[in-house]
Amino acid sequence: MTAPSDRTFSEPDEAIMEATYRALREHGYADLTIQRIADEYGKSTAAVHYYYDTKDELLAAFLDYLLERFVDSIQDVETTDPEERLEVLLDELLIKPQENPDLSVALLEMRSQAPYKETFSERFKQNDEYIRYMLKAVVNHGIDEGVFNDVDADHVTRSLMTIVDGARTRAVVLDDSDGLETARRTAREYVDAMLR
Amino acid sequence: MTAPSDRTFSEPDEAIMEATYRALREHGYADLTIQRIADEYGKSTAAVHYYYDTKDELLAAFLDYLLERFVDSIQDVETTDPEERLEVLLDELLIKPQENPDLSVALLEMRSQAPYKETFSERFKQNDEYIRYMLKAVVNHGIDEGVFNDVDADHVTRSLMTIVDGARTRAVVLDDSDGLETARRTAREYVDAMLR
Repeated sequence: MTAPSDRTFSEPDEAIMEATYRALREHGYADLTIQRIADEYGKSTAAVHYYYDTKDELLAAFLDYLLERFVDSIQDVETTDPEERLEVLLDELLIKPQENPDLSVALLEMRSQAPYKETFSERFKQNDEYIRYMLKAVVNHGIDEGVFNDVDADHVTRSLMTIVDGARTRAVVLDDSDGLETARRTAREYVDAMLR
Repeated sequence: MTAPSDRTFSEPDEAIMEATYRALREHGYADLTIQRIADEYGKSTAAVHYYYDTKDELLAAFLDYLLERFVDSIQDVETTDPEERLEVLLDELLIKPQENPDLSVALLEMRSQAPYKETFSERFKQNDEYIRYMLKAVVNHGIDEGVFNDVDADHVTRSLMTIVDGARTRAVVLDDSDGLETARRTAREYVDAMLR
């Protein structure tokens, strides 16, 4: 499996992505406009359109960008110990989003549009596949090293992502910031039961 | 805790709810109009407005209606055995929705609007609370009878609802009808690990 997207974000792309990030947190998905992104970017809408024809195209690139940031944060982790790496991955998926509830609100809006927008749908599928691939690599590594039980690694990673997605949805829909903490505990219990 | 809503749905209310159900499945949430509901109802928009001032008010009542249907289906279950009742509840939450993917799409759109619409937010919180209450009663019953471990029933029910909400989200966002089956297996594994 190759990198999450075929591109890396270079300046000034990166600056537009940062502007989109701020605009999404401020206005949510439904009220997001290229104008608002341009305002955060500090340039004209033409400067944004030079890189992206439509808002949806820009947002699809933004989903790639989020995954890339996630992958970078994981690659910075120095440990190769499978138990520790799994903990770090679950912390990144369930503890990190607590810092940014406004982004979670905007992302759930985008997720709910996946059945209507193929560009979103493709990205969400690809991102999920990539994160499951990372989780599965760690689980399989632990099985090979004899520290994890010989489980169905594909199923276990799907279960963990179900817990992650449930927590993300509940945090937004029920306005429950404890939802992610609860899910972190659930994920720990599930890992203990299945892998140890 | 009292019933999920202070009302029961009588004719012609019930007929409007059935019409809303069909219109939502057909058009999704964003494209739903009172006209489309009236078309399904087979009467004028005035006839719908006689009962509901706004679309959001009608949809809030629709969320009450869905919970009431769910509660009815559970109350029809004759067994009082806690292990069997827990299985039935999880089947209702994770197997039943597989019959109706279009409704799941519309519901995720409504869920994503909870941060912006207090009437939706209140209903989703209330419905979640009520379903957790039902799950917790079964878990506590099992603990009292000595068939379940003496767990933190509140946490276990929150975990199960996290798995349920994750499955609902994934089924829609990833267009993955297997997501609910996967989650049913995850819930079974979690119940086995925690309660037995």
